[in-house]
Amino acid sequence: MIYLDNNATTPLHPKVKEKIRETLDFYANPSSAHQSGREVRFLIEQAREEIASFLNCLPEELIFTASGSEANNTVLKSVGLCCNHGCSIQSKIHIISTTIEHPSVLNTLKCLESQSVEVTYIPVDEYGIINPDDVKKAIKKETTLISIMYANNEIGSIQPIEEIAKIAKEHKITFHTDAVQAIGKIPIDLQKLSVDYLSLSGHKIYAPKGIGVLYKRKGTKEICPLINGGHQEHSLRAGTENTIGIIALGEAFKQLKLEMNDEVKHIKHLRDKLEKAIFEKIPNVKLNGHPEKRLPGTLNVSFKNIEGESILLRLDLYGVAVSTGSACSTGSLEPSHVIMALGVDPEIAHSSIRFSMGRDNTEEEIDQVIEHLKEVVEFLRIISPIK
Amino acid sequence: MIYLDNNATTPLHPKVKEKIRETLDFYANPSSAHQSGREVRFLIEQAREEIASFLNCLPEELIFTASGSEANNTVLKSVGLCCNHGCSIQSKIHIISTTIEHPSVLNTLKCLESQSVEVTYIPVDEYGIINPDDVKKAIKKETTLISIMYANNEIGSIQPIEEIAKIAKEHKITFHTDAVQAIGKIPIDLQKLSVDYLSLSGHKIYAPKGIGVLYKRKGTKEICPLINGGHQEHSLRAGTENTIGIIALGEAFKQLKLEMNDEVKHIKHLRDKLEKAIFEKIPNVKLNGHPEKRLPGTLNVSFKNIEGESILLRLDLYGVAVSTGSACSTGSLEPSHVIMALGVDPEIAHSSIRFSMGRDNTEEEIDQVIEHLKEVVEFLRIISPIK
Repeated sequence: MIYLDNNATTPLHPKVKEKIRETLDFYANPSSAHQSGREVRFLIEQAREEIASFLNCLPEELIFTASGSEANNTVLKSVGLCCNHGCSIQSKIHIISTTIEHPSVLNTLKCLESQSVEVTYIPVDEYGIINPDDVKKAIKKETTLISIMYANNEIGSIQPIEEIAKIAKEHKITFHTDAVQAIGKIPIDLQKLSVDYLSLSGHKIYAPKGIGVLYKRKGTKEICPLINGGHQEHSLRAGTENTIGIIALGEAFKQLKLEMNDEVKHIKHLRDKLEKAIFEKIPNVKLNGHPEKRLPGTLNVSFKNIEGESILLRLDLYGVAVSTGSACSTGSLEPSHVIMALGVDPEIAHSSIRFSMGRDNTEEEIDQVIEHLKEVVEFLRIISPIK
Repeated sequence: MIYLDNNATTPLHPKVKEKIRETLDFYANPSSAHQSGREVRFLIEQAREEIASFLNCLPEELIFTASGSEANNTVLKSVGLCCNHGCSIQSKIHIISTTIEHPSVLNTLKCLESQSVEVTYIPVDEYGIINPDDVKKAIKKETTLISIMYANNEIGSIQPIEEIAKIAKEHKITFHTDAVQAIGKIPIDLQKLSVDYLSLSGHKIYAPKGIGVLYKRKGTKEICPLINGGHQEHSLRAGTENTIGIIALGEAFKQLKLEMNDEVKHIKHLRDKLEKAIFEKIPNVKLNGHPEKRLPGTLNVSFKNIEGESILLRLDLYGVAVSTGSACSTGSLEPSHVIMALGVDPEIAHSSIRFSMGRDNTEEEIDQVIEHLKEVVEFLRIISPIK
């Protein structure tokens, strides 16, 4: 198999696999007071320190969750539902976000809107990037939160997060960024970047699925737990810790620290090679996303007059794994909300394919993909009713 | 080490460990449309079927969560916060629960009470068991939910769940039970037991931490997701699936089906042996919980005039792992709310120790624990300022 779906999820790093195997015998509850409990607690805190060192933040600023989605929901609902915040549920709340967020942000905002929270969705330009001035203009007296993703999962477009963070700070508005796709691809230093909350997910950086992190800057307004219960994670996220997931995530960050620079160069090189070949060898294609301000391993292309789904399934027969958009939207008949937000026709959105590179991909794989893709597109265009 | 803290968490079953090792290479996103995604989807659905077969329910009635705490929060907040339910946030909501629930229920109820939900907490008798008539009496026009745990984590008392379920059904009130400690110890057949929702957790039955399940009976009122986002788990719980955790949980249930009867006999035998010896060899002890209506592996004893914490730490020096109560309450200086609910003095609550047996414990271990315990209690009573 040639796996070009690394934005959907990544394989485990060999060192992460090794770490998981080693961890299977550390089973005690990290909240237990006895020796074996304290041992597991130590391993968890060691992982937290590893992650904090990568992000250049304090270990106590990191809250382990089960996913990036949970991290996003925690911030948005804590602000939007405002429980335990002392403010009444009737307080006016206004949130600023964008039209191309991940479903875990958009659907949470939709839930909040049904409960009288007002949301402004900043539109993107034809490259999928917002204008920071639009954020400034959208700010109101009631604006409580700005939540804007760092880099888009479908098209890879990178938002001007530093500028938005400055605007938020000037106006004393809490700022959250969903950095699930950015982590490991774009250097992030939380001493320099003034975000209050940041979400990340393990399974996009060669750690297992089922583990995420919410970064919460020290001194930032307290959050209300999404999951109430025990005292875990400073009473901000209850439930017995996912020991294996946390320790594996620590290892993934340890490796990322060593390998990220090379990895980024590698996936950018492969992506550029694939992009160049597609535009040279296949007619009637359109790049979705910004030519430069884009994640290094992401390539989203529309192949006019063909359904993306058909390309995906035929490439799959050749053992090539790609995607038509977010894995979180699979099965939906709607065209991608991200591609549609670029202002294109639904046909263009329906004909898009996302290729996303990872550390394990090789030049030879890219050569093979180009051959198969050319054949598949030619064949599908011959049988396509749309000319 | 002699591990008698199996109510806090359990070691991985050897077959579960094996399954995890096998699963490390199945990394695709189960929502991906390509072959490798479909393979992982198949493994997840196979695990779901395994669990459904154990519980005698439909696979589609099971929602994977990250913990029992998340499952409990999902039900309670869905009913209490009522978002997406069409009913307004101002609707009067009344919930019936008990004084000895797990913190993930009690603290969630506290959060809901701060938002105008009314809660009645049914008290327990001196054995930690509620009277179903009290539930009946507490029912009001506004009662929307009854949430009562199946068996208590600290003292093992088993509630008359079948009777309560009947009462709930008669009054057409939704009924939820936190069965985290009951699963694997008490036979549960969801065709016979008329609960609407049931929570369970993997790490109490030899599966990893970080995976839980919410059972939602088909036809029961829809829930509002605690985590909004992608379409995972029938759009009831967003976030990329914890593949390893789910597949491991399926294996744990497969083994439980084969081994539960023997395991229950084994842990009951060891528990009874330890209980008998403690009462024969150590004076001034008191059993907390019901003598018979109790989980087979749970033994909670107060050693008068000594701090439970001191016993725990000294036993730990002998390599014996026990607990003073719920691991989710470690670090709290308050006496256990469960023991206090039995109507005892705070001194009795502070002097309690929970011994909880598991499949790996042996007769020889129990013999050793008795010797160490006798010595520890004698020593601590000599140095105790309270006589």
